[in-house]
Amino acid sequence: MVINENERIDDLQYKGLKIIQNKDGFCFGIDAVLLANFAKNMKRKNLVVDLCTGTGIVAILLSGKTDAKKIIGVEIQKESAEMAKRSVELNSIQDRVEIINEDLKKLKPIIEAGSVDTVTVNPPYMKVGSAIVNDENKMSIARHEVCCTLDDVIKESARMLKTNGEFFMVHKPERLVDIFCTMRKYKIEPKRIRFVHPSVDKPANIVLIEGSRDGKEFLKFEKSLYVYENGEYTDEIYEIYEKEK
Amino acid sequence: MVINENERIDDLQYKGLKIIQNKDGFCFGIDAVLLANFAKNMKRKNLVVDLCTGTGIVAILLSGKTDAKKIIGVEIQKESAEMAKRSVELNSIQDRVEIINEDLKKLKPIIEAGSVDTVTVNPPYMKVGSAIVNDENKMSIARHEVCCTLDDVIKESARMLKTNGEFFMVHKPERLVDIFCTMRKYKIEPKRIRFVHPSVDKPANIVLIEGSRDGKEFLKFEKSLYVYENGEYTDEIYEIYEKEK
Repeated sequence: MVINENERIDDLQYKGLKIIQNKDGFCFGIDAVLLANFAKNMKRKNLVVDLCTGTGIVAILLSGKTDAKKIIGVEIQKESAEMAKRSVELNSIQDRVEIINEDLKKLKPIIEAGSVDTVTVNPPYMKVGSAIVNDENKMSIARHEVCCTLDDVIKESARMLKTNGEFFMVHKPERLVDIFCTMRKYKIEPKRIRFVHPSVDKPANIVLIEGSRDGKEFLKFEKSLYVYENGEYTDEIYEIYEKEK
Repeated sequence: MVINENERIDDLQYKGLKIIQNKDGFCFGIDAVLLANFAKNMKRKNLVVDLCTGTGIVAILLSGKTDAKKIIGVEIQKESAEMAKRSVELNSIQDRVEIINEDLKKLKPIIEAGSVDTVTVNPPYMKVGSAIVNDENKMSIARHEVCCTLDDVIKESARMLKTNGEFFMVHKPERLVDIFCTMRKYKIEPKRIRFVHPSVDKPANIVLIEGSRDGKEFLKFEKSLYVYENGEYTDEIYEIYEKEK
């Protein structure tokens, strides 16, 4: 197992799982942990695909939180995908988790249409043009829609998913109109939504969405999740992280 | 001024405004008050149209909360429209508020395309078919999309509104996908959203949305509004109602 000089091994505090990250690169945040938590009760677990997997955080957490048979993480950036592959080895979960270093727009020859039970995705949040973007920058690719847009992500998810296949995404609330309209466009009906607020008196800054391929129209609102209260993590955040110890 | 036997006059606790309501009919709720409060900072105030005005609650409140020059309330049900007309007289605001008893789908000869600055609307929330509906029932018409659908409401709003005209709607969160997709369809871009929760630990059950005709894509989330805390109205709800005393 090679750990490069600019890398570190982080303990995920959950069933002994670990992850290799680049000290100077894009490290996973609360968004990924919340997505894995939101998706953990998935009903369809034969084949799960985690798009935009980065260093594999959601795929690795789902290997611990679910009994999914097979989880494929797809990442376009070679360096991140390599790290994810080594993390899979480090956790000895190669029999269940596979990392593919590929552009999600080029998955047709690799993953058959209508073959996937569940998709999870923590995509880049920001539209190109919404801030200064350096195309060469790995951080930009992780954060901005340089290599894939929301439309690409949802279109490919819809292609891969079985009828009634499940779709779980974490995103920014300000993109919610785009998200809903694009999901409908590709026939992944939004079914469940949960907003995450920094605290009770602040607007939501993260949104978790569950959709169903060819699902019926009905959107269930869950109570909001508040991250901080009086400067400390709320019980629920504490539970999400702490129960994993 | 005729007040029928089955009617009562309610004090709106705001600038002495009053409203006539049918004791056995659909009386205004918190939704209408919240909509008027959400819309009161409208920037365009030459001509405001309040669709689905019912007994005129939002039009009457806006006459007090804004300096809008002209407010037209449109109501399809004859009995409600008649009550609204009498409430306008009762408040002596005939110079600013006009009630039209008409189907909103038939406003073309009455209200010119692109002539309206601001639309407010508290439409029927429920799709026909989502519950038992009695077509003859006035309550059903107020609550269910018997006489107009969400598509009708937004289509007609878009027709009437000037470029960058403002649109304010109160609705149910579970219809949010329909709302966003229909607003985009008719080029009223959602710009601002506020969720209303019964309390901090419950999911939102009311949503307030501001849109802009031909507006740019950007959705601003506001902090949530919580109605109750420990069984009492929160300060903010108290303010919305109480400040009006």
